[in-house]
Amino acid sequence: MIKLCVAGTVAYDSIETPFGKADNVLGGSALHFTNAASFFTDVGIVATVGSDFDLEGISFLKDRSVDLSGIEVDQGKTFRWEGRYGYDLNQAITLKTELNVIETFKPKVPEDYRNAEFLFLANIDPELQLHVIDQVAKPAALVLDTMNFWIENKLDALMKVIERVDMLVINEAELREITKEHNLLKGARKLIETGPTCVVAKRGEYGVFMMNRDEVFLAPAFPLEDVFDPTGAGDTFAGGFMGYLANVGEATAESVKQAIIMGTVMASFNVEDFSINRIKRLTMPEIKERYHALKGCMQFTDIRL
Amino acid sequence: MIKLCVAGTVAYDSIETPFGKADNVLGGSALHFTNAASFFTDVGIVATVGSDFDLEGISFLKDRSVDLSGIEVDQGKTFRWEGRYGYDLNQAITLKTELNVIETFKPKVPEDYRNAEFLFLANIDPELQLHVIDQVAKPAALVLDTMNFWIENKLDALMKVIERVDMLVINEAELREITKEHNLLKGARKLIETGPTCVVAKRGEYGVFMMNRDEVFLAPAFPLEDVFDPTGAGDTFAGGFMGYLANVGEATAESVKQAIIMGTVMASFNVEDFSINRIKRLTMPEIKERYHALKGCMQFTDIRL
Repeated sequence: MIKLCVAGTVAYDSIETPFGKADNVLGGSALHFTNAASFFTDVGIVATVGSDFDLEGISFLKDRSVDLSGIEVDQGKTFRWEGRYGYDLNQAITLKTELNVIETFKPKVPEDYRNAEFLFLANIDPELQLHVIDQVAKPAALVLDTMNFWIENKLDALMKVIERVDMLVINEAELREITKEHNLLKGARKLIETGPTCVVAKRGEYGVFMMNRDEVFLAPAFPLEDVFDPTGAGDTFAGGFMGYLANVGEATAESVKQAIIMGTVMASFNVEDFSINRIKRLTMPEIKERYHALKGCMQFTDIRL
Repeated sequence: MIKLCVAGTVAYDSIETPFGKADNVLGGSALHFTNAASFFTDVGIVATVGSDFDLEGISFLKDRSVDLSGIEVDQGKTFRWEGRYGYDLNQAITLKTELNVIETFKPKVPEDYRNAEFLFLANIDPELQLHVIDQVAKPAALVLDTMNFWIENKLDALMKVIERVDMLVINEAELREITKEHNLLKGARKLIETGPTCVVAKRGEYGVFMMNRDEVFLAPAFPLEDVFDPTGAGDTFAGGFMGYLANVGEATAESVKQAIIMGTVMASFNVEDFSINRIKRLTMPEIKERYHALKGCMQFTDIRL
């Protein structure tokens, strides 16, 4: 049974970082997400690829209880993204975006996915995100990601999506841009007033800010000596986050905090290699070890005064 | 008995933020530091002011066990700094710096201060910092701050100071600039190889990174809805940090983590008003309350997997 459904992109990426170069490698929001989430739960993926896409390249996901039947193969070429990073790996420079099959994509959620209790709307056109919501039963947790392009070009549609979701998992810059508030507390509160109960803002190497109706939670990023390629880190975070929530079967305030920590752990692996490679060869003992290491960086004994 | 000695500046600041303007108000690294540290321990302050300085304006510090006899009144005008902040309060724009009496300052550490177990070298010329170290008995914890100006203009002298201190409390940008390493882990390790046992990097609204020989500790900043004026936040952090260490009387790894949290709490108050005003009217119950609030933002129960 599909517990977690994700709608987003599957792509071929070409990436250049100060540490190397990779051409036409697997990428896309839904693929990074699924790769991470599949460690924790059964995932169904809604996306489109072109006839040039090598489905064999992602067949390993089936062994991790991922259902790939929601990936539609359309006439044309697969979505392609070309980007570059300088030493400040927080900021990607987009060199080229070829929408290809995405341009005419109308996501169809397979029957089997429609009762998934956890639904993640990865970064795609907010009109497509609305179309996905319309096809499913109300999940226990409906969570949204987006990007600056949609904030700048389809804010009305995006605000309609935001009204209907339970949580947002977005970058802090996107939170500022949507709400026109520099201060994260004020921005998150504005969004919470429109419907969602919780806002999770990703801050790259600075970790994660979370606000719900009652409290704030702040998690650091895992300290890494070598960040190789940050592409997909945000989607991998979301995959660990949603995968964990689906695994424990509830999105309480406490589970959400734990899920933020798990998302942080997964994202820290993703950046250690190009594309989906590091998470592809990752093991559960490695995940648990890093979880304990991250927890160790956050702990202190009570002050004495 | 003086437990904590600080050498640095006492100044008149003129500050403009998007929220207001303040002319010729109390400032300077040693003054912000002392104001915060005085909640926790007996402080002696080594600094210079001009004959225009109104000592009455800081006499309230005497009631908090601060010894002001180390403030030398010299012929000339008090050090003046003029700065402005935009909405990104992480970045100050210096409009004017008048060194005045600082230019010919030769810090003299009073007899009573020379056995202080905790010594903080606030941001001044590294040659003056060396001169201070030469006058004191080896303290239990000798801690250094600096700024980009000295890194760019007196790196050799600064490196000599770094070799002789136990800890650095600097901004992350300064850590990167001194070590020429973008990665904080690599940069901190480089510094630790030259002598200090611990590097504390301040990251503004993103909190604090600490590394010692064995571990890393990451603390968030206290989430504030309204940041009024960030001037002196770093020195206030250092004051809470060193004041706490002097209070518990030891600089173990665990005390340092607690001290980072206390520094964070104190800095969060400092930014709520211009100059030293907020910390001047602060009370211990407020400090304790905010400590518990900050701790609450960092806590989560163990993951279930």
